[in-house]
Amino acid sequence: MRRRRFLTGALTAGAAGAGAAAIAGSYPRPALAQSRIEWRMVTAWPKGLPGLGSSAERLAERIGQLSAGRLTVKVFAGGELVSPLQGLAAVSQGMAEMAHDFALYHIGQLPAAGFFSAVPFGLTPAEFNGWINFGGGQELWDELYDSVGAKPFLAGNTGVQMGGWFLDEVNDVADLKGRRFSIPGYGGDALKKLGVETVTLSSGELFGRLQDRSIDGAEWIGPYNDLSLGLYKITKLYYWPGFQEPGTGLECVVDKAKFAALPDDLRQIVAAACQAENDLTSAEYSGRSPGALATLVNEHGVKLKKFSRDLLMAFGSAASDVVGEVLEGGDDITRRIVTSYLRHRKSALVWSRITDGGYLAARDLGFRFPDGSTS
Amino acid sequence: MRRRRFLTGALTAGAAGAGAAAIAGSYPRPALAQSRIEWRMVTAWPKGLPGLGSSAERLAERIGQLSAGRLTVKVFAGGELVSPLQGLAAVSQGMAEMAHDFALYHIGQLPAAGFFSAVPFGLTPAEFNGWINFGGGQELWDELYDSVGAKPFLAGNTGVQMGGWFLDEVNDVADLKGRRFSIPGYGGDALKKLGVETVTLSSGELFGRLQDRSIDGAEWIGPYNDLSLGLYKITKLYYWPGFQEPGTGLECVVDKAKFAALPDDLRQIVAAACQAENDLTSAEYSGRSPGALATLVNEHGVKLKKFSRDLLMAFGSAASDVVGEVLEGGDDITRRIVTSYLRHRKSALVWSRITDGGYLAARDLGFRFPDGSTS
Repeated sequence: MRRRRFLTGALTAGAAGAGAAAIAGSYPRPALAQSRIEWRMVTAWPKGLPGLGSSAERLAERIGQLSAGRLTVKVFAGGELVSPLQGLAAVSQGMAEMAHDFALYHIGQLPAAGFFSAVPFGLTPAEFNGWINFGGGQELWDELYDSVGAKPFLAGNTGVQMGGWFLDEVNDVADLKGRRFSIPGYGGDALKKLGVETVTLSSGELFGRLQDRSIDGAEWIGPYNDLSLGLYKITKLYYWPGFQEPGTGLECVVDKAKFAALPDDLRQIVAAACQAENDLTSAEYSGRSPGALATLVNEHGVKLKKFSRDLLMAFGSAASDVVGEVLEGGDDITRRIVTSYLRHRKSALVWSRITDGGYLAARDLGFRFPDGSTS
Repeated sequence: MRRRRFLTGALTAGAAGAGAAAIAGSYPRPALAQSRIEWRMVTAWPKGLPGLGSSAERLAERIGQLSAGRLTVKVFAGGELVSPLQGLAAVSQGMAEMAHDFALYHIGQLPAAGFFSAVPFGLTPAEFNGWINFGGGQELWDELYDSVGAKPFLAGNTGVQMGGWFLDEVNDVADLKGRRFSIPGYGGDALKKLGVETVTLSSGELFGRLQDRSIDGAEWIGPYNDLSLGLYKITKLYYWPGFQEPGTGLECVVDKAKFAALPDDLRQIVAAACQAENDLTSAEYSGRSPGALATLVNEHGVKLKKFSRDLLMAFGSAASDVVGEVLEGGDDITRRIVTSYLRHRKSALVWSRITDGGYLAARDLGFRFPDGSTS
């Protein structure tokens, strides 16, 4: 089964420039010396990217710490060994032992892969963690990636994202027709149904493409990352809510055979480090986004714009159509993944409505609180 | 500083019955044999309690696995070594190396301790994780518990809780006067301001006290736990939202000196195991609550009742008063904790409103989805 889906040709670094393929070929194989194991982790992120990039670095470092150096992980930025969106392929082909990216980057090869990162109008981060760990999600994810020789772990979550940046206002569906927008995954497929021309750009390309107006807008993540990319310098129109990615899971993919060959405690260490990082990265986005948003609004004059009800209804119907098509057009594993996800969603909707939703609405009723808010 | 706050007399098991003090006295001290360390973890939970109890067991087991048995942890149910609510005191006095409970149980000794579990109308679980990890919360928590010789870790979250069970309907503030309700922490202090007589009962006492009507109602956690306690057999009135505990953190408290004496990798293992468990326990409550709620409603005829707007406004004002009093009446560390928490809350309010709140409202607009919901 292994390697049946990926072509070696697709693995060479694209935007990252020349030499990456040669580097990949000459990089030494992991060596066993004094029971020390060295692994390579390829990532989809530019060097030093806050949140996503620092999460990958922290995860690698933690594995080394927990194992007292018996298993060390060297991290490569997107493009250093392979192109940013090809992490799973690299693991599948033995060019790296680990990859750190979004599962939605693999929809082209594995159509249901995106259900393990984000689905428009799908599960919230808490609901998603519930499905993965206690709703059958992990077992289905394992089965899906088993076909390419990989073992996946959840390793972070961005939280509910922002709807994105637009060069010009969008008030209704007619305003979307013919616009060019950078958005990956099923969310991009949904916008296509509403007449948007979509592309999937890496974070490093967004600023330039917005600046020269070769795209009309882009969604990336949220204030913490978008601030560092400087997108506010080009447009002030920042839309919410981010229906297209309501809490996007990060994955750490591991070479399945090499993972199975580890001693038991090192397998547990890899799993625990990913689970700890899932918690910590989510906390980082939750902890740092409010301050970054305040900086965007108060220092850079960014305007928060809420998508209109008509637009949200249209997004909802388009997302529904996309999910339905993945379900109906898919093979057996795809259908089982989508069915399990939808079953969890339907049940979780009621619970989240009276807890998370009910609580947030109550907190906003308008009484004064000692933080000075009229919350 | 150590031991200055706790009296030995308070540590003997209360409701758990006779013999616990004697057991505590005769239990062998941790032994070092072949570099193996054995620690004791006291908990606030009855043996086998789903969610909270199984989380403590899982955490202890994970520490053993990650360390390949170099550090093993033996778990004691509430009352086996010390009474359920005295975990921090037990660690402070060297009777156990770890305790697993809610920080709000320690408000009597450390008035700001509850800010490290739940504050009525306070932070959501995601906001709370953000404050602890990236908003200065952990450093303040470390400082607070340093005064009793302990090091705290976040080790789980129940998610937004339910408002609780009432024997008779409550529609406005007048209905609350003279009612007896089991509720701990600042939430209990808030209800007192509205004329409620409050008590803090352990989970094992709730059924009997509701059954003989010596209390008129109780909040515990949510469907997953409340189902196992069988509270639906006594009353069908189940209120939401749970303003009193909008996502309650579980803590794992460790003897600070013994933690500092561990080798570096074992310290990292304890910390990572707690962080992984913080993620997994939250996922367990998120994953299992929807099904438990459906069982309560569909099989046991439980009625979901929303607190009226008037009640929620009254709860909000009372909670505000309680938080203000803790802030103004507290010593230096109390004031710094409450101030930091409130600063984070004010900033996070805006972010959660447009992401979590905005997304949940959009998902509920009424379009059809392939899961059959008109979401």
